[in-house]
Amino acid sequence: METTGRTIRFLSEIDCWSILPEKGVGRVGICIDGRPFIFPVNYATWGRSIVFRTGPGAKLGSAIDKAPAAFEIDSTDIIYHEGWSILATGSMREVKDEEQLDAIAHLPLAPWAPGDKSHFVRIEIEEITGREIL
Amino acid sequence: METTGRTIRFLSEIDCWSILPEKGVGRVGICIDGRPFIFPVNYATWGRSIVFRTGPGAKLGSAIDKAPAAFEIDSTDIIYHEGWSILATGSMREVKDEEQLDAIAHLPLAPWAPGDKSHFVRIEIEEITGREIL
Repeated sequence: METTGRTIRFLSEIDCWSILPEKGVGRVGICIDGRPFIFPVNYATWGRSIVFRTGPGAKLGSAIDKAPAAFEIDSTDIIYHEGWSILATGSMREVKDEEQLDAIAHLPLAPWAPGDKSHFVRIEIEEITGREIL
Repeated sequence: METTGRTIRFLSEIDCWSILPEKGVGRVGICIDGRPFIFPVNYATWGRSIVFRTGPGAKLGSAIDKAPAAFEIDSTDIIYHEGWSILATGSMREVKDEEQLDAIAHLPLAPWAPGDKSHFVRIEIEEITGREIL
């Protein structure tokens, strides 16, 4: 087996949380009837949650069900095989509480895609891991 | 509700398959006990499959189980809210057949991360959708 000559460094939880607010575009993973789906979203962090906007559909349905969710961000350099990735997992819910909606209203949460994105959803993160390829 | 001033264009299946080989780094989604996980991989296309290398772990376990899998690539410009994303879904399996292994041996499949990545896995795509934000 060939080796890549690269090393892997695991990021601490603190490192992950410090990188998380910077990226702006990430990917939400959900399971529907045992099948995985991945959707890019514009997001912001809020406490220990990832917040994004969405319209009626699979993501909102999962939020209403308080379903398990994954959230991933990465930065990769395909030529040099360098980069990092962070995976956060938790459960998703719609934000409906007026106080919470007021609190997140200032976040930079323009939806990635056009259309009705009037619902605010958050993924309450239970576990976060990251790794860096050097 | 504010509008973004952007429009969405759905990509044809042919468009998706023509973009797919170009990206090189994508994300695999799997469900384990009803919970979603997302992992970045270096990949190549082979027929109607996505092929990547992996070591012992969650992805290989899913492949052995021929589990449902998702595969996502995207390109986003956070400033201008432009970009595109492609989501392919299907089922995952390990490539063990010698003829198939010979056929994929020439693919540019250096693993993204170091470590034992001696297993070849493919996601046989059943459905592919894409969208572009303009």
